[in-house]
Amino acid sequence: MTKSPAGSLTVVGLGPGHPEQVTPEAAAAVAAAGDFFGYFPYLDRLSLRADQRRHASDNREELARAKAALDMAATGGKVCIVSGGDPGVFAMAAAVCEAIEEGPPSWRDVDLSVVPGVTAMLAVAAKAGAPLGHDFCAISLSTNLKPWSIIEKRITAAAEAGFVMSFYNPVSRARPHQLGEAFDLLRRYLPGSVPVIFGRAAGRPDECIRIVSLAEAASDMADMATCIIVGSTDTRLIERAGKKTLVYSPRSYKGGSA
Amino acid sequence: MTKSPAGSLTVVGLGPGHPEQVTPEAAAAVAAAGDFFGYFPYLDRLSLRADQRRHASDNREELARAKAALDMAATGGKVCIVSGGDPGVFAMAAAVCEAIEEGPPSWRDVDLSVVPGVTAMLAVAAKAGAPLGHDFCAISLSTNLKPWSIIEKRITAAAEAGFVMSFYNPVSRARPHQLGEAFDLLRRYLPGSVPVIFGRAAGRPDECIRIVSLAEAASDMADMATCIIVGSTDTRLIERAGKKTLVYSPRSYKGGSA
Repeated sequence: MTKSPAGSLTVVGLGPGHPEQVTPEAAAAVAAAGDFFGYFPYLDRLSLRADQRRHASDNREELARAKAALDMAATGGKVCIVSGGDPGVFAMAAAVCEAIEEGPPSWRDVDLSVVPGVTAMLAVAAKAGAPLGHDFCAISLSTNLKPWSIIEKRITAAAEAGFVMSFYNPVSRARPHQLGEAFDLLRRYLPGSVPVIFGRAAGRPDECIRIVSLAEAASDMADMATCIIVGSTDTRLIERAGKKTLVYSPRSYKGGSA
Repeated sequence: MTKSPAGSLTVVGLGPGHPEQVTPEAAAAVAAAGDFFGYFPYLDRLSLRADQRRHASDNREELARAKAALDMAATGGKVCIVSGGDPGVFAMAAAVCEAIEEGPPSWRDVDLSVVPGVTAMLAVAAKAGAPLGHDFCAISLSTNLKPWSIIEKRITAAAEAGFVMSFYNPVSRARPHQLGEAFDLLRRYLPGSVPVIFGRAAGRPDECIRIVSLAEAASDMADMATCIIVGSTDTRLIERAGKKTLVYSPRSYKGGSA
């Protein structure tokens, strides 16, 4: 029996949601593939041809989705997995690598490529000014994949060392309280005046960018599609008459005291 | 005397360098502007029309460039500042905000927008697999704008808390030794087996992605255009016969010991 020729798997980042933020590279990868796997709202963004097939799945099914896509690619399919934002940031590229490491040897023969995209924190930061203009970190608040104690340790370390922070997956129906706990923890290390940005659907028609102080920040200001940016003690506001307030983190270290 | 109508200033991210990684939004912003400010290699990427004007400057002149662009926009110009990657990550968006905060009131009337792009670490990560698949941070190693002691503090905090790290501005002719000091510091907190990725010109014809262990990592593997990703103790390698090794950070916390 001859071995089937391995196909290809491309993991594509569709950006924050606006079609104008999809790179030509991502659009070309979508045009070249035959089968599409992904969380259904991301698949809904694609305008597929009649000869292209959708395989939608729910979120929290990333590993099963990665395995199904690799299985099809290993037998010659031209397969695409789509992620919102960038596929390498808390998204499908890592799930595909995990599946390859654990899976049959034939999955290592698949021609794998990852097409980067504009990740949510960059889109939210652009709408607010330049809050990520100084050293920053990105933390997923989901406890599906790590213990809350580790998240607390990282938030504390980031606050003490002066990083601006972006929170992905801030809340879900199963974990409504943790974001509030994160803000309570931050208030122990940072002054209440530190700006907090809640960004949802940046660049889309239903965009909502809200800027509050850490003292005011509350978990009901976010849903699972919100990306949150917490400033450092150096992060500043610029008020402008008749225009949106700008939030930025100076490139220079100022040593704002915590 | 009537006040001149304020013009517009758009700070545009051109992505890592490949034309296919420029978003349509960024291309449209370039098409709509008349005057272009930026570090000359980024301006060189644009195909400008005869009616569009270039105002190139050297790097390390960010604040002066921001002021010149705001000055022109405040008197009615349609002005664009271009950055490589994303303009909000160690780039021009923060310099523009700093200039607005310090500058004349008329600069606050300028119609300012920031167009995000694919920042270098996302492009390098995509080429390597998914090293940023778990919590991560981004640190500029330049001491032009902050003391080395703060950089050491942040590297230490990130290593102890289990963040993957991306280093921007890793070396320059004026600071050839600091990257080596950063690796020495990291080797005190992390095992020598931790993967380190040196990514240069990701997505461009001269792309170079090199994967070494932290034990082997040395400053002469980077130049000022390199983006470096240092894994955590959970970051893994997947060897593939006849294909590039994949590097990824599992979505789940594994608690690899430091």
